[in-house]
Amino acid sequence: MTPAPEYRRDPVTGRWAVVAPARALRPLVPHPAPAQADPPADCPFCPGNEHDTPGELLADRDPASAPNGPGWRLRVVPNRYPAVEAAPAPLLPSGDLFTAAPAAGRHEVVIACPEHVVRAAELPRGAYRGLFRAYRERMAAHAADPGLAYTLAFKNVGADAGASLAHAHAQLVATPFVPAIVQEELDASAAYHTRTGRCVFCDLAAAERSGPRRVCETGDFVAVAAFAPRFAYEVWVLPKGHAARYETIADAAVGEFAGVVRRVVAALDAVLGPVAFNWYLHTAPLRSADLPHYHWHLEIIPRTARPAGFEWGGGCHVTATAPERAAADLRAVVDRPPGS
Amino acid sequence: MTPAPEYRRDPVTGRWAVVAPARALRPLVPHPAPAQADPPADCPFCPGNEHDTPGELLADRDPASAPNGPGWRLRVVPNRYPAVEAAPAPLLPSGDLFTAAPAAGRHEVVIACPEHVVRAAELPRGAYRGLFRAYRERMAAHAADPGLAYTLAFKNVGADAGASLAHAHAQLVATPFVPAIVQEELDASAAYHTRTGRCVFCDLAAAERSGPRRVCETGDFVAVAAFAPRFAYEVWVLPKGHAARYETIADAAVGEFAGVVRRVVAALDAVLGPVAFNWYLHTAPLRSADLPHYHWHLEIIPRTARPAGFEWGGGCHVTATAPERAAADLRAVVDRPPGS
Repeated sequence: MTPAPEYRRDPVTGRWAVVAPARALRPLVPHPAPAQADPPADCPFCPGNEHDTPGELLADRDPASAPNGPGWRLRVVPNRYPAVEAAPAPLLPSGDLFTAAPAAGRHEVVIACPEHVVRAAELPRGAYRGLFRAYRERMAAHAADPGLAYTLAFKNVGADAGASLAHAHAQLVATPFVPAIVQEELDASAAYHTRTGRCVFCDLAAAERSGPRRVCETGDFVAVAAFAPRFAYEVWVLPKGHAARYETIADAAVGEFAGVVRRVVAALDAVLGPVAFNWYLHTAPLRSADLPHYHWHLEIIPRTARPAGFEWGGGCHVTATAPERAAADLRAVVDRPPGS
Repeated sequence: MTPAPEYRRDPVTGRWAVVAPARALRPLVPHPAPAQADPPADCPFCPGNEHDTPGELLADRDPASAPNGPGWRLRVVPNRYPAVEAAPAPLLPSGDLFTAAPAAGRHEVVIACPEHVVRAAELPRGAYRGLFRAYRERMAAHAADPGLAYTLAFKNVGADAGASLAHAHAQLVATPFVPAIVQEELDASAAYHTRTGRCVFCDLAAAERSGPRRVCETGDFVAVAAFAPRFAYEVWVLPKGHAARYETIADAAVGEFAGVVRRVVAALDAVLGPVAFNWYLHTAPLRSADLPHYHWHLEIIPRTARPAGFEWGGGCHVTATAPERAAADLRAVVDRPPGS
């Protein structure tokens, strides 16, 4: 039997890691797969293969269709090879040199499109809207579990970005702790607020709208090339108005936000080709108050380089493309109609 | 003209990044190159091609040979495509939303072996010793420059680990600030010391010597599988006795330490095949006092997986091999003679 996944706390930095031997059992499908044609018959995310995933947690499906069968436009299912598991055990108290605990949590997959689409730039508009709505619904469901502190919603595209299946999908991992990088943002933005009385993300959105790193915007959202990126062509999408928690987003705003993300992904694809990338949503912890200093946003990191010893050892990333140049490249194509 | 490299401070977290357009000009040699045979005639690190690198900063060479010509066993040269440059400008004061400054520093390459060896496991013993001695000498040289705060010494092996040239080499980057991950270790280990009166690395070395994560040891050093790893088979090599700064290491200890690193690299190669990996040395900042809470060590990260959205977005790494299993695998081969 495969051992259950475990959280482990780094004895020096206190950062959590997950040791999940079951993840080694994942099928690794070679990709980039051949373009949209001929989905493999055994793709677990294609209609007809619903039995290959655990039972659905959420679905957008025809009223006449039955759960866990065809007839859906979007499904959310538990990850079959989870990094964390819905287990009742609380975290052990920390403080000793070695702290470990059962990896309690939720690891879910959002299948946003029944068609076997591989390139994120080719996902239909409705799939983007459905996906970002599903993030919201699942975060709200996780918030009802007092054992969970945070939901990190993300998407991996391409083997170089850690994706193991080609059929377009997104993921959520909910944990009983706030992940280290989010905590770092929470602490730093609280310090900025104490110092200035303002939200650093509000200031950033306002400053970047008229600057050389602006990629595109709508009434409520702006996409900008990150000022101090980890990857060349890294783009952040921020609401212009202050909002700490993604779960509070209204339906109309989800559509507008999804449209901006789709435009940015298409622009990255046009400039860089079918590049591997990740996105992840940074939002305030589950059930937190409406924090005046924190502001949800999406970060998109195209895997334009392989971080090396200097980056892994120091946390200081070197990129070879100035963000102002990246933004200019993306602006040049961001509103080009698909296929042109 | 290519713009000069620039430091940029993330407006939210305060972490520094480097934008270095000249890095885009690096030749990227496809590799893993064919095994040791037939070095390319234009390898800039092979004897006879010394004119392809900037002038040497340090060399171990035959007394009869001239600088920047053949006859060497080891050379240290400035990186021809530097991430940072020896420039006089101080960092601008921080505090604004956008802070940038000229990327002043040193970026150096250690060519530890005149033979065109590609696999780190096949580098001769003397090359390891020379390389770790060169790290020490260059750190001492950097310490004499009050504009530099830290030297991060590292090595990248394989394209997946960010290496652009196949001929075995190592690197150093010296910066006017302490890199974020080192600062995180400094802060966390200071807190541990305040709480317990002890050094967390001393405690770790002592505890792991008799535990299931021990890989190998000598009189003064121990290699252990990291308790909460970012990559499967991640190994840390620590001095057993307290020492904050790598620069203080004695010649005999360099040889012993280099031997342990070489054994670990050979064991990783035997277990995982010719895997891409990085190592980096974490040590106290240049010119710091003999800190009671910090303890230099080397971390080796084989690139056994591609971190994805959860890792990049949260800083929480998921691995599929328990460190105890990794250590057992490595112990089984660590003292096997090469080629057996």
